[in-house]
Amino acid sequence: MAIAKNNYGIRIDGSALNERLADLAAIGAIGDTDGACRLALTDEDKAGRDLVVTWMRDLGMDVRIDGIGNVVATTVGVGKHGAGLGDVDPVAPVMCGSHIDTVRTGGRYDGNLGVLAGLSVVEAVQRTGLVTQRPLAVGFFTDEEGARFPPDMLGSLVYTGEMALEEALDVVGADGAVLGQELDRIGYRGTAPCPAPPPHAFVELHIEQGPVLDTEDVIIGAVTGVQGISWTEIKVAGQSNHAGTTPMHMRHDAGWVATRIAVFVHELAETFGPPQVATVGRMELHPNLVNVVAADAVMTVDMRNTDDSLLHEAENRLELFLEQLADESGTTITSRRLARFAPVEFNADMVCLVENVASDLGYSHRRLCSGAGHDAQMFAPICPTSMIFVPSWEGISHNPFEHTEPEHLEAGANVLLQVMLELAEVAEASEQTTAELTHSKGVNR
Amino acid sequence: MAIAKNNYGIRIDGSALNERLADLAAIGAIGDTDGACRLALTDEDKAGRDLVVTWMRDLGMDVRIDGIGNVVATTVGVGKHGAGLGDVDPVAPVMCGSHIDTVRTGGRYDGNLGVLAGLSVVEAVQRTGLVTQRPLAVGFFTDEEGARFPPDMLGSLVYTGEMALEEALDVVGADGAVLGQELDRIGYRGTAPCPAPPPHAFVELHIEQGPVLDTEDVIIGAVTGVQGISWTEIKVAGQSNHAGTTPMHMRHDAGWVATRIAVFVHELAETFGPPQVATVGRMELHPNLVNVVAADAVMTVDMRNTDDSLLHEAENRLELFLEQLADESGTTITSRRLARFAPVEFNADMVCLVENVASDLGYSHRRLCSGAGHDAQMFAPICPTSMIFVPSWEGISHNPFEHTEPEHLEAGANVLLQVMLELAEVAEASEQTTAELTHSKGVNR
Repeated sequence: MAIAKNNYGIRIDGSALNERLADLAAIGAIGDTDGACRLALTDEDKAGRDLVVTWMRDLGMDVRIDGIGNVVATTVGVGKHGAGLGDVDPVAPVMCGSHIDTVRTGGRYDGNLGVLAGLSVVEAVQRTGLVTQRPLAVGFFTDEEGARFPPDMLGSLVYTGEMALEEALDVVGADGAVLGQELDRIGYRGTAPCPAPPPHAFVELHIEQGPVLDTEDVIIGAVTGVQGISWTEIKVAGQSNHAGTTPMHMRHDAGWVATRIAVFVHELAETFGPPQVATVGRMELHPNLVNVVAADAVMTVDMRNTDDSLLHEAENRLELFLEQLADESGTTITSRRLARFAPVEFNADMVCLVENVASDLGYSHRRLCSGAGHDAQMFAPICPTSMIFVPSWEGISHNPFEHTEPEHLEAGANVLLQVMLELAEVAEASEQTTAELTHSKGVNR
Repeated sequence: MAIAKNNYGIRIDGSALNERLADLAAIGAIGDTDGACRLALTDEDKAGRDLVVTWMRDLGMDVRIDGIGNVVATTVGVGKHGAGLGDVDPVAPVMCGSHIDTVRTGGRYDGNLGVLAGLSVVEAVQRTGLVTQRPLAVGFFTDEEGARFPPDMLGSLVYTGEMALEEALDVVGADGAVLGQELDRIGYRGTAPCPAPPPHAFVELHIEQGPVLDTEDVIIGAVTGVQGISWTEIKVAGQSNHAGTTPMHMRHDAGWVATRIAVFVHELAETFGPPQVATVGRMELHPNLVNVVAADAVMTVDMRNTDDSLLHEAENRLELFLEQLADESGTTITSRRLARFAPVEFNADMVCLVENVASDLGYSHRRLCSGAGHDAQMFAPICPTSMIFVPSWEGISHNPFEHTEPEHLEAGANVLLQVMLELAEVAEASEQTTAELTHSKGVNR
């Protein structure tokens, strides 16, 4: 795909982008770190949503909220189809977006970058008065992290019709809250339809959350796809007993069984080798006392691989181990799938477009596959989709110390800008626009 | 030691004992089970204390509360030293006792039996009008379980001078509460001195909390001593990170390290073989989320052995493993001892007395060592001490389904009664007493 050589002379205002990232991170701030905690549909999430919606409206965008709380803002009065009508362009928009909910130990950039960079794109286009044939849309999707309500990427699942709205509203969170009730509580259950009509194309700018770009000192990642993800919750029912008087061979220790599972899962990942990863991030014992053999344990297993057959193999080996361990330990082990996503391949042309734009802007780049799940993977089946990665310092993410250099944030946003302009088809600029553009370039007349 | 052949014709009122056990278990009852939750110095513990103190006063006993909340009730006006004085006998009393605090998943008999059976002993003596040369004392000691405030047996530690009162009052609980403040809050910081003057002898009736007597169908256990106990709290500091994008070899997963420790501890116990036991009853991960590599973990290790040198060996091997694991995993592992008790041997004559009384009453009996810590072990260094065990159904304890057959409870209480009478030296009964005694035996005159 050919790129307009002068890139329409538009650039992102990096300082404004950084200010918005800081302002959003101030909501649910974690101590004096850069990080924030805005678990989905909590008061902090509501405050974050309110702030971003205000910014969307300040840009004169048409803001729509759907039945699961996804928020999509669209430029109005642009393009041949909608000029001056003050209504949404009937033509499918070129959409970008991500999420603004976080994990408990969230960083400043995960998700937020893709949403706020989208606003910077709209701002840059408006500032320079370029006219696009298609509207530009910026969205943020509910509960992408899944840290409170399983599964993750729930909002985009519903948006793209992969999950029924009613089913999603009934999801019960780790804290016992019901998703639909929390959505009502914070006032974000809207009327826009879901599933929604597919956009013309979808592109998501995101931090890598891994070490590849940072280690190789590459600025832009053209994301070819997303690893498959498997989340399982495992419950072990044993027998609580006195820790001093019960001989080891007479125990049904749910805590010991849970730790055996965690060690097995880790060894499984090392046996398979990269890119297979496996994590037991959550484990709770009951009654959780120093001198009582645990009666019950609850834990989660997160396994990911780019090869779906290998991921299935890992799931099968785990199930087999659980059966053997239950017999061996005299405990009852039950498991249920919290989430399961097959690996995703992004549209080849879209991946090329990201590479070409990066080259044209003079940024180093490489292809890579995402280790994390992203909203973009839900759009891949319904429209041309791709992602843009920027480096994560030391690959650290889901951590208040998550960091990306300002120039890399700006680079990623500039790639997003040019990719969206290519997809939205730029029309000729008006006289006045040209003047502004010239002026904006500081030329003395 | 010779036993009076007719055992003074006294027997315990088993139904009254069972009623008191049920009434106490109703405080902090766990659902519709027999169990109760009365963690030390909580509102439930206060309610339990108030009830038992009422029963003590109803028996006309002199109730004294010391600076750590231990409660000791002594018979008054008995024996040649105190007759009619209405004050505590200056001669050291024969004391029995245990505790009434529970673990979170407490049973009905653990601790409570030893206290309430003591009241049944006093009741039986008063009913039959026997006169003892030494007063009888019944005590219950603060925070024996250690389930809220470490270490366990804290009250008897302070009572016997093994722990300074000031130190004990400053202990911070697992829930962040300060022991001294909670003691004041429930109104059980008394004025009786601690350490207290040693009793003439101490005997504790307790359920075995293990499977030996039940398995062998033996009614009475003559306890020869108590296993050594070692409690360690271990904290692992790693790095939280994204569960999908961080290659296994680049992780510092505190959760995985904690589970490695738990598995090691279990293998250690199996390598050492019986009577070595080891338990990881408590484990917490942070942030404890499905898709986040754990940044921190806190866990406890409970290890016990009758051989102190083997227990030290187990502690040393654990420490060595922690050092190696910290290097290997790139995490920081710190550990602190929450409690450490050397194995205890009870007084040989006292153990014989328990055996002789059991034989004389026609109960099957055997010697055994306690796998659990008990208040009695704190008295062993300061006065002749022993314990009486009765069977625990299937060895289950620290569990609402903890159960001991009523006839076994009564048998244990009858052994306690006769042992205390032997130690307190029975004087001649008065005319009136004999009449009552005869009447109580239902003889028609």
